[in-house]
Amino acid sequence: MILTVTLGSGVAVAGKSDYLMPDAVPAPKDNQTTVERVQLGKALFFDPRLSSSNWISCATCHNPALGWSDGLATALGHEMHKLARATPTILNTGFNKFQFWDGRARTLEEQAVGPIQAAGEMNQDMGELIGELNIIDGYKVLFEAAYPGEGISEETIGKALAAFQRTVVTTESTFDLWAKGDEGAISPSAKRGFELFEGKGRCVICHSGFNFTDDGFHNLGLKEDVPDMGRYNIRKVAVLRGAFKTPTLRDVTLTAPYMHNGMYNTLEEVVDHYDRGGDVKEHLSPNMEPLGLTQQERADLVAFMESLDSIEPLSTTIPHLPQ
Amino acid sequence: MILTVTLGSGVAVAGKSDYLMPDAVPAPKDNQTTVERVQLGKALFFDPRLSSSNWISCATCHNPALGWSDGLATALGHEMHKLARATPTILNTGFNKFQFWDGRARTLEEQAVGPIQAAGEMNQDMGELIGELNIIDGYKVLFEAAYPGEGISEETIGKALAAFQRTVVTTESTFDLWAKGDEGAISPSAKRGFELFEGKGRCVICHSGFNFTDDGFHNLGLKEDVPDMGRYNIRKVAVLRGAFKTPTLRDVTLTAPYMHNGMYNTLEEVVDHYDRGGDVKEHLSPNMEPLGLTQQERADLVAFMESLDSIEPLSTTIPHLPQ
Repeated sequence: MILTVTLGSGVAVAGKSDYLMPDAVPAPKDNQTTVERVQLGKALFFDPRLSSSNWISCATCHNPALGWSDGLATALGHEMHKLARATPTILNTGFNKFQFWDGRARTLEEQAVGPIQAAGEMNQDMGELIGELNIIDGYKVLFEAAYPGEGISEETIGKALAAFQRTVVTTESTFDLWAKGDEGAISPSAKRGFELFEGKGRCVICHSGFNFTDDGFHNLGLKEDVPDMGRYNIRKVAVLRGAFKTPTLRDVTLTAPYMHNGMYNTLEEVVDHYDRGGDVKEHLSPNMEPLGLTQQERADLVAFMESLDSIEPLSTTIPHLPQ
Repeated sequence: MILTVTLGSGVAVAGKSDYLMPDAVPAPKDNQTTVERVQLGKALFFDPRLSSSNWISCATCHNPALGWSDGLATALGHEMHKLARATPTILNTGFNKFQFWDGRARTLEEQAVGPIQAAGEMNQDMGELIGELNIIDGYKVLFEAAYPGEGISEETIGKALAAFQRTVVTTESTFDLWAKGDEGAISPSAKRGFELFEGKGRCVICHSGFNFTDDGFHNLGLKEDVPDMGRYNIRKVAVLRGAFKTPTLRDVTLTAPYMHNGMYNTLEEVVDHYDRGGDVKEHLSPNMEPLGLTQQERADLVAFMESLDSIEPLSTTIPHLPQ
């Protein structure tokens, strides 16, 4: 049975149809989002036995209690090793054309098995993990129901985790209600913020469409002690030096701190960064010219971003793990 | 509003009234289990900001996905430091007269603030934590609703966590149905196991009452490389050398591995241990005489313990943490 999730889609008023969620999260032909696959993927997502320590699960860092991220500037991993980049949220990653801050995976299926095996994250040997899962009877049943005859493999583990992640979505926001014609759904400040978002602020150039991202990579001129080359490590093109994937703005108040290195704690600091046109001019995105915003305009942009929050954020029940 | 939880209580058939759950979990007069206190305590329980690393929450080790324990032989803590004892489950600790394996706390209120401050666990300075919580607006609202006028303190943090933990309970088991008169609710093997539990196995001497524990401390003759003195560290009485608190048997299949040091992976191994009367005779509890069980009898005891599992284990929704 194909699982359906409610995304707050609908019919927009004139000029706002770009911003409404589609009816469903797309899934590849060979990994349609079935109830059985989501159930398996959810168990795997919450299971610390996926790490070599048997203590760290996907949910440890992609914590549903903290917007499916960890609230830290940069992530921690095996033995509390400190990573160089912030944990990206899982929310709406089912819509992404690239995964990870540097887009090194194209699909969730490919992404999902990365952190499991990274030495500084879950530090797990995939062969050992498959062996461990194969002796848990409950998992054999779940894998067979989800991927009949395919067995437990890196491929089916990745597919199941991806199927679950496609159900991790933002829900209807007050902005969505407004975009569908409810004039009173958001404040005058948020409405002015939306005008600035599309106009003087030029935010929409990168934060475009219903998920408020262009799925592109941009250098925002962040000041770092050790500059992170970002997308350039994956594609050696000069404009991609220090460029990182544009994150969604939906549920953005849940996912502080901000930027790929978590250097800003508040949305106000992020707006200030754009207002001054970034701090490092080398390889800076051409969209990063200073904005000259007034104090009120900066507050309006924050009010607009707050209106993108899910009215009722996704509710998640903790699974009882197979034994 | 006082929160009520469903415990699978009821009216037992003759001879089984000892084993039925009471109608409610008791709470101290100054910390009645209100909806507001449970809501606050649940947020605190799932909040990794309670640890110095901001990465470890109570739920990291007392993981609802793994029977409110961690599935490890012995616990891990700050920087993945390995602790000497197994993580006890939170389930039904609201009924305990002592908390921790060695009973060093009498109340959940006192227990709850221990692991937060232990260097090898959450490694948090209480003063710093109170300062951090005080600048999270959402927490100020939750504390005021739960403990009006009392503010954020070690005491109110402990009280709120205790209030939440009192809602973490086992639910009705097939054994309970049987004890209430449904003859077909458990297997013939489980019924024979119950006879052995009360008779030849002598299990009931310590695993007594509805929560299957006497709240006492016993030396079971476990073979350890470095003997743990257990309760003796708290009370210098010879019979308490190497004695540990009797754990509940409800939901016991969820909380492997077993014993205070997690040395047995299966209930079969635990039964074998009792059958042979333990391995170390020094300071051994007088109840630990060998049992001389047949293979069938050992299997029956396991079937009985499995009948104590909650039919529908407690369902837990992850809170969205205050910002």
